[in-house]
Amino acid sequence: MSSSSSSRTLKIGIIGFGPFGQFLSKTMVKQGHTITATSRSDHSHLSTDLGVSFYRDMDEFFEADNDVIMLCNSILSLSQVVKSMPFHLLKHPTLFVDVLSVKEHPKQLLLEVLPQESDLLCTHPMFGPESGKDGWKDLNFMYDRVRIRDEAVCSSFLQIFGSEGCKMLEMTCEEHDKMAARSQFLTHTIGRALSEMNIESTPIDTKTFQTLVNLKESTMRDSFDLFSGLFIHNKFAQQELKNLEAALDKVKQKLLDRTNKELDPSVSNNR
Amino acid sequence: MSSSSSSRTLKIGIIGFGPFGQFLSKTMVKQGHTITATSRSDHSHLSTDLGVSFYRDMDEFFEADNDVIMLCNSILSLSQVVKSMPFHLLKHPTLFVDVLSVKEHPKQLLLEVLPQESDLLCTHPMFGPESGKDGWKDLNFMYDRVRIRDEAVCSSFLQIFGSEGCKMLEMTCEEHDKMAARSQFLTHTIGRALSEMNIESTPIDTKTFQTLVNLKESTMRDSFDLFSGLFIHNKFAQQELKNLEAALDKVKQKLLDRTNKELDPSVSNNR
Ligand SMILES: NC(=O)c1ccc[n+]([C@@H]2O[C@H](COP(=O)([O-])OP(=O)(O)OC[C@H]3O[C@@H](n4cnc5c(N)ncnc54)[C@H](OP(=O)(O)O)[C@@H]3O)[C@@H](O)[C@H]2O)c1
Ligand SMILES: NC(=O)c1ccc[n+]([C@@H]2O[C@H](COP(=O)([O-])OP(=O)(O)OC[C@H]3O[C@@H](n4cnc5c(N)ncnc54)[C@H](OP(=O)(O)O)[C@@H]3O)[C@@H](O)[C@H]2O)c1
Repeated sequence: MSSSSSSRTLKIGIIGFGPFGQFLSKTMVKQGHTITATSRSDHSHLSTDLGVSFYRDMDEFFEADNDVIMLCNSILSLSQVVKSMPFHLLKHPTLFVDVLSVKEHPKQLLLEVLPQESDLLCTHPMFGPESGKDGWKDLNFMYDRVRIRDEAVCSSFLQIFGSEGCKMLEMTCEEHDKMAARSQFLTHTIGRALSEMNIESTPIDTKTFQTLVNLKESTMRDSFDLFSGLFIHNKFAQQELKNLEAALDKVKQKLLDRTNKELDPSVSNNR
Repeated sequence: MSSSSSSRTLKIGIIGFGPFGQFLSKTMVKQGHTITATSRSDHSHLSTDLGVSFYRDMDEFFEADNDVIMLCNSILSLSQVVKSMPFHLLKHPTLFVDVLSVKEHPKQLLLEVLPQESDLLCTHPMFGPESGKDGWKDLNFMYDRVRIRDEAVCSSFLQIFGSEGCKMLEMTCEEHDKMAARSQFLTHTIGRALSEMNIESTPIDTKTFQTLVNLKESTMRDSFDLFSGLFIHNKFAQQELKNLEAALDKVKQKLLDRTNKELDPSVSNNR
């Protein structure tokens, strides 16, 4: 297969065959790519059902001659997983892709350890098994072409998402992390707080409250590992948590000020 | 028109012709009811456009011989508005209805001041100009038949909402307030906190983050008077604000615990 063809089928190896790796593999298999996987736990039964070859052994997985090796493990396990990767077994330059929900951390770590001749594409599909269950059309896909020499393999990989209708957004890993801390991390934090409160649908829900119940439920479908990864390995997250606390304090203070004004009859209540 | 017919057109007087009173009047006019209104501010121009007769003078409004007088003023202004109502001018027993977003407060206040022969229906349409802009089908309508003797007028009034497809939910004002503090007040609090943070759409929004941006926007369309009314006059709201703060603290603590575990290599990272 010529490397100059605009889109070719790829041999893709997935490291970390959890919920998100499995989810991505379904569309890739459907598109005709050849998928292998390896993971900490044994997912071989499920892999067979999905049309994916599963290797329990990382060495055998590395020897399997993949065009692309895609990291789909948890954010928190990245440094451990990277340490266990037998790069010397690679038979040729390989495109490494990660899909972690934080981006500066894998970029830096992978630039340190990848063989010089291997390419690196850092990506974040801004959707998951729930929001992407009816297809990926109009869902956002962020990527940073950190070190790309084999354009053919890289563009064939990006085409997997482009051809499903994703909005393809090229930006730096740092730009991503800044925005994601204010959007995705914030969303998860609120979803988890609502879960700590045990909020549930009531007979008198407003439409907007129903969206909060849905938010809680979709947040809790993702692992706590994922959520804590968003916090620990995105340097902007801590500040956004502080901003959320400060904002809630401000709202509370405005309510208390208004309450005092209402209670003090010497102050006018007119707007 | 006989008072025993299952649904008759009504003469409805609205006190408080702000965003919500105007919104309700449109559907009532469309259904053929005769609507008059009075308000602190002069809304006479707008009223004409809506097919509503506007009285600047509360006395004239009370003399206008309404079947129903509906309170659509702000929660915070209720005691002041009630004081200004010339009940002695009523020509016959009248059904008083309130639509305030808290329910125990108007129930108690109105039971104290209404003429003995007047009926009282406390209601809360769980929707507004935004969520109800494409019709009221399947939207929740809460009501408490606090003191009803004229069944015909009461059921004709309820039919306004029933016939539009609202889910009609009968419950006590106290049950309402308990649930609404955990749902509507909570939703508004989060929407206002997001607004204090100035969150905005990003190029890499997830679907769930988009719902939070929408929540912020729809919350900020309601007045701060409305929001502070939810807090000041629902006795359950303060506790729910505390619950939200405690929940956010818990989430934060879990994140910090996990961070410490990650930083201390003597502790295993396995799930
Ligand atoms: N879920 C989503 O919607 C979504 C969307 C975009 C990106 N992502 C990213 O995709 C990745 C996977 O997410 P996920 O939803 O599947 O859940 P996750 O909890 O973030 O990751 C689960 C995966 O990490 C592996 N793993 C966890 N701890 C490990 C360890 N100590 N050593 C080796 N492997 C370990 C698991 O292996 P085993 O299964 O073998 O135990 C599993 O494959 C994450 O980096 C996440 O940020 C997820
Ligand atoms: N908006 C909604 O989605 C919604 C849904 C269900 C129930 N409600 C309830 O409906 C009522 C009206 O809500 P709203 O959205 O229109 O906004 P609001 O800010 O809660 O109330 C505005 C109305 O209150 C009147 N008002 C305010 N302060 C007053 C005072 N000191 N003296 C006399 N009148 C005063 C205003 O009169 P002027 O306009 O004449 O200045 C206006 O008619 C509230 O009780 C609210 O809880 C609202």
